[in-house]
Parts: sequence; structure tokens; C-alpha cells
Amino acid sequence: MDVCIVSIGTELLLGQITDTNARLLAERLASAGHTSRLRVTVGDNHAQIVWALAEGLARADAVITTGGLGPTQDDITREAVAAVAGVPLERDERVAARIEAIFRDRGRPMPENNYRQALVPRGAQVIEQRKGTAPGLVVPVGSKLIACVPGVPYEAEDMVDEVLAAFAAHDPSPGVLASRVLRTWGLGESRLAELVAPRFDALWGTPTTLAFLASGIEGIKVRITTRGSDPDGVRATLDAEERTLRAILGDYVFGVDDDSLERVVARAVTGRQARVAVAESLTGGMLASRLVSVPGASAWFRGGVVAYDSAIKHEVLGVRAERVVSEAAAVEMALGAARVLGADIGVATTGVAGPDPLEGEPPGTVWIGVAIGQRAAARQVRLLGDRERVRTYAVASALDLVRLTLEGSPRGLSLEEHSA
Amino acid sequence: MDVCIVSIGTELLLGQITDTNARLLAERLASAGHTSRLRVTVGDNHAQIVWALAEGLARADAVITTGGLGPTQDDITREAVAAVAGVPLERDERVAARIEAIFRDRGRPMPENNYRQALVPRGAQVIEQRKGTAPGLVVPVGSKLIACVPGVPYEAEDMVDEVLAAFAAHDPSPGVLASRVLRTWGLGESRLAELVAPRFDALWGTPTTLAFLASGIEGIKVRITTRGSDPDGVRATLDAEERTLRAILGDYVFGVDDDSLERVVARAVTGRQARVAVAESLTGGMLASRLVSVPGASAWFRGGVVAYDSAIKHEVLGVRAERVVSEAAAVEMALGAARVLGADIGVATTGVAGPDPLEGEPPGTVWIGVAIGQRAAARQVRLLGDRERVRTYAVASALDLVRLTLEGSPRGLSLEEHSA
Repeated sequence: MDVCIVSIGTELLLGQITDTNARLLAERLASAGHTSRLRVTVGDNHAQIVWALAEGLARADAVITTGGLGPTQDDITREAVAAVAGVPLERDERVAARIEAIFRDRGRPMPENNYRQALVPRGAQVIEQRKGTAPGLVVPVGSKLIACVPGVPYEAEDMVDEVLAAFAAHDPSPGVLASRVLRTWGLGESRLAELVAPRFDALWGTPTTLAFLASGIEGIKVRITTRGSDPDGVRATLDAEERTLRAILGDYVFGVDDDSLERVVARAVTGRQARVAVAESLTGGMLASRLVSVPGASAWFRGGVVAYDSAIKHEVLGVRAERVVSEAAAVEMALGAARVLGADIGVATTGVAGPDPLEGEPPGTVWIGVAIGQRAAARQVRLLGDRERVRTYAVASALDLVRLTLEGSPRGLSLEEHSA
Repeated sequence: MDVCIVSIGTELLLGQITDTNARLLAERLASAGHTSRLRVTVGDNHAQIVWALAEGLARADAVITTGGLGPTQDDITREAVAAVAGVPLERDERVAARIEAIFRDRGRPMPENNYRQALVPRGAQVIEQRKGTAPGLVVPVGSKLIACVPGVPYEAEDMVDEVLAAFAAHDPSPGVLASRVLRTWGLGESRLAELVAPRFDALWGTPTTLAFLASGIEGIKVRITTRGSDPDGVRATLDAEERTLRAILGDYVFGVDDDSLERVVARAVTGRQARVAVAESLTGGMLASRLVSVPGASAWFRGGVVAYDSAIKHEVLGVRAERVVSEAAAVEMALGAARVLGADIGVATTGVAGPDPLEGEPPGTVWIGVAIGQRAAARQVRLLGDRERVRTYAVASALDLVRLTLEGSPRGLSLEEHSA
């Protein structure tokens, strides 16, 4: 089915909260094989809500609303839906009893206005409220449906399955829609587009589409979306397109879907049962923090030294290089981190975050060092942007260089022996 | 003005990314005194984008679009806006030259399709691209405006001021509108609302309004917005309301507007010409990274030890405490960091990020240690949420505790002498 999401709440229009429900609903709808061509956000205003519902029903087979089901006077989604469906609101005694029970359980007196949440458009299917006091609703409007879930995210999430079940019962044959995201690092969006352009053309007229998602420090994602009658066929199509794209993009692809650079590094490191330590200058702990963010990091991550002051590099890490923004410093920091913290693999960052130059080097000049045992090397990268962007990209560049080096990629570092 | 936000991107409709730009734009529009009655999200589809622009212009004085300004085949916002405005797209040589310069600086060849980003609807005002290759656009359509910013959040954020300036020039609203944000940490939103409720009532009917912005790790913001005939009067009103709110909230207010906890700590530290070092376990470098993010940190930040593996705590920091999730460990880590890294002030975090318990303590159990010279103490906090949330809140709690302790607040730590 084609579904329109209507988010209701003045706080959304004022930007006081982020609309996470819209994303949740969109994601669940897509994975259930539904398509979405439109999302509308309106305030707690009867005319606006009615307009959005009518536009949604005119353009889609179903509408899902989120928000406006609370007990207060500005929660008017029920009234708007009933008006669009052309049916009266009727008190559902089972819903009312459930609300009373919730307040009894909480040992709190129940305000009279909570009974508003027991009002249900005639003919609507009620989705029982388990997490809050507002029930969900599925309201038939002619040949179409309006489903309503609360604005509170965990209340909404609790009802999505039942909404999708109602949609499936209404339209049993949506087919299967599935997508897969290839995660890349190291290619600009336009260069990536150039490389993939032939696939865009080849896929023209097929149910398979490609899209780029530039997500900054997450790198650029290439999303494959396809549609078919059965899950196996759809999966086979995704597998085939992934193989084709990997053949084009090589190891610029570091993973798929939920993979992150740090998770990929974690897999490579645990694969060789190694332990990692880091030494950071300009990134100042950000590299360690991303590694620690991987659950189970304690199995392979020893720790790090944030050698922000040059003296720390010399005193704690035993760096002898005079210039700290240098290949020699990066190599010695990587070796020093592994030695001081008792790790097999050492990773180091040193460079100029800005705003001021350092040792005559402009902001964005970064050296990344990698040591495995006594073998080590470093590479310089030049990064654009302000202080935070330089630091963030330096961390991602370091993670990617470690990955490529551990994978033995020609784009990785070739390490050289350094005497202990 | 009444402004409609149009978010463009199939990835939004598929729920693959959260629409943070829509919130950013809505928040900035509201602070600038504009109203928003509608937000529409559509895919990378010409007909859908044209429909959304037309609906927006029909219902508002201006439309802001975000997304679809990239160089690739599916970035078609420029074409749709030109179609709605009824003007041709023309290549802007200054924009083209800037894009070429960006690629030159990066030492990368410029793909032909990047010239698509130099296409500008005739008569449009160009907002120079500083963070990416896509310029912003402000396109007059009859008596109304369409403004376009990129979908990449930091590129969009960089252009908001110029969009708002264009709106102000288009519709110079009577009088002056100004707002100030009080930054708080340590109070829940509902408790804060309780405390501030009397001010809401007192301000009823005046041109001054209060709003809460709960922004997670940034703490809860209280925004004062007021309107008046002259800048001085408006500033005086903001000053008076700030004083009133500070009297109510005390040192739960850590700063105003762009202040962050790390900047406030940086000011307090430089004020006493001290140097800081950190020792981190569960936060794994995140605390150091936030301190390093302050420009000029090299003047007062020495560095840190990420003692993720317990052995590092004992070997590198000289911690004697057996249990690492303990008051004694936090105190010894803070003292150890200052000693090993040659600092006057040491700050330490140790605890359980989860998902698994540690030393019998549940996830969210965190000890924060602070040492000034040989005087030190620690405090336990219990944090809710997943691994990343616990780590992030532990860092903010540590920064806040350092701030309160350095300010001599009764809510800070009372340090005790520890023999060297």
C-alpha cells in the first residue's frame, strides 16, 4: 500500500522536539513492503489536521497519524479523524475501564479529562494501550484506512505491529520491498556517483533503485532498494547488486547496513586475537571513544593516551621526534601506545586541528600512525573544515586506515620494522 | 512570516535517516519570530517536490527546502524550484569557480556533474557554500520566497543565518525580536517546569515568552523571547528575565546561549591558571575529546589516560583500589592522572557502561573523581539508558561536577587531603 504519515503536534512545528516517530513508522512501513510518497507535519489545530488527513487519503491508500491522542484539550486527533471519516465519537467502555485500571495500578486519582482518551470513532478498530493511557485506532474511511498511534515514542512503537497487521488484512498483497545499504569511506559523493552512474542506467526500468546518502562522518552510503513478489527473490536481487557494486567500488566499501568503521575494525582485531591501544593528539580521545563504543570492546581494547601537550608525547610515550606534526612522531606514538599500554596494535593521530597553524603546518594537516608489534608506518591526510570537523574526519580516516592495513589492502600502510 | 518547511529526500520517507534539519530550521524560525503551520516531506521526485512547494507557497509567506541540492542524478530540488518559480536555471560562474576551487584545494579532480550545483534559478540570491559544494538559494516567487539549503546538517546549519536575514529583508517585521537561552544541567524537565511555572503566569499577556528545549546531552535550555520597539529596551527585558530565572534556578544554570559545559570548565580553569588532565574508564576518551574541542585547549589541557582495561588503571595510573567501580578508584585515578600527566587538576570517570554488569554493579553506575593538587574526592551518579547514553551523560555529569567544584558551589565536591 501507499501510506502517508501525518505527524501532529505544535511542538514539532516549533522544533522543540525531533520527530523520531515519523522515522520509526517510515522504516517499519518500508520493511513491510509499503511505500511512502508523502509525510506531513501539522500543529494541534483542527483545520490543519483535517486538511492533512484529506491530502493523505487523496494521495495514498492509508494514513498513519502520530500524536494528538493525549487527554488534554489540545489533543484533538480523535475529533479530526472522526470528522474526516464522517462518523461520531463514542465512548468505548473497555478502553475507559483500562484507563481507570492504569491509574489504580499507579495509585493515582484519575483526572476526568482522561475519559477523552476512551472516545473512539464509530466502526474503528481499537489497539489496546499497554504502555500509556491512549489506545491506538484503525478507522476505515471508504476503501481506505486511517491509523492513529500516540506521539510518545515507546507508546507508538508498541502499536506498530498491530497497525501493520491491520494494513495487511486490508491489502493482503503489497509484495516485498527490501533495501540494503553499502557503507563507503574515502570517495567523494560525486566521484562515487560517477563510478556508479552506469548502474543507475542499467537499473532503469527495473524494480531496483540506487540512492546516495551523504552522512558526513559516517561516510557515504549507497542504498539498494528493490521490490518483488517473494522474499528469496528480493534477497537474491540485493545480493547480486551488492556484488556488482562491490566489484565497482572495491574496498572503498567497508561494510553494509549497521556496520560502522569501529565495528569493522573490532571484527578485524578480534579475528587475529590482537589487543589495541591508541595515542591521540589532535583527536584528543575521540578515536578511543569510538572504539569503546563497540559493545564488548573490553575484550580487545586496552586503552589510550591522550597526548595533547607535546611534553606528554615525549615523557609518557617516549617520542623522540622534535616535530610532533610529523611522520616520525606518528610512528613513535603508535609504537609507544602499544608498548606503554601493553597492546599488539597501536594507532596514533597527530596533527593540526586549528584554528591556528602548528609547526608551520596549516589546520587539517594530520598524520596517522599504525604499529603492529615492532612494524609501523604513518600516512599524512589533509582535511578541510573547522576544528571539530578536522578532528572527526581524522578519527574516521584513522579507523579506515587501520581497517585497510589489517585487511592487507593496497590502499593500506606497508609497515616497516622498527627496533624496540 | 508564516514559513513552510519542505524536507526533500527518499531516504527520509524510507526512514533511513532522521530529519534533524527540519527541527533545526523550525527551532531557528521560531526563535526569529516566524510561525510555522506546516511541514512536508517528499521524495526525490519532481512532481512531488513541485506539489509540496506549491502547497507551501499557497499556505505560507515563504518555503524553506532542505535536501536535493547534491551533484547526483537524484538531486533535483533546483529544477523543481525553477519550475515553480517559472524561471530558467542558469549557470552561475562565481558558484562554479568556487566549486572548482574546493576541488583544487582538496587536490582532487572535479567531476563534470558537480557543475550541476552551479545551476541557479534566474533572479535567485545565492548563499555562498562554505562547508560543502552546494550553495544555498533564495528564490523570489511573486510576493513570496523559496529558500533552499542542503540536506547535510552542518551545511544547512551554516546557511540558516543568511536565510533568516533574507526573510527579514523581505518582510521587516515591526520592532525588534530577541531571545536568550539559559543553559541548565542537573534538573529534569518536569522539575524545571515546576520551578519556572510562576514565571509563565507572570509573563502572561506580556511580549515576553519562555520555552523549554530539552536537548539531551546538552541539558535543558530555557529560551526567553521578547519583542519591543528598540534594541536597548529588548536587551534590558532579557537581562531582567535572566536575573529572575537565575534567582529561581541558581547554579543549575551553567551558561547562556552558546556556552557549553566544556567551555564553562575551560573558563574556570584558565581563570586560576591551572592545567587539567583526565583519566577515563567507561567514557573512554569522550571526556578528553569534549575538553579538546574548546579552541585554545592547549593552553590548559595536558592530556589524558584512557584506562579501559583495569590493568592500565593499576600499572599506568597507580590505582591501588581492588574494585575499579568504586569511590577509591575514582579518587586514585583523578590523583594519578594529575601526577602522571603533570597537571594541577585531575578528573576521572569509572563505572559500568553496560550492557553487562561489572563487579556486581548494574549498568549506569558511575563514579566521578576530581583532584586539585593533593586534595580529591569522588561522587557516584546513577544513569539510565543504553551504553552510549550512559557514557555521554557520564561525561556531562563529570564536566558539571568539575564546574560546581571549581565555583565552590554547595553542590560541588568537598575535597579532602590525600598524601602523595
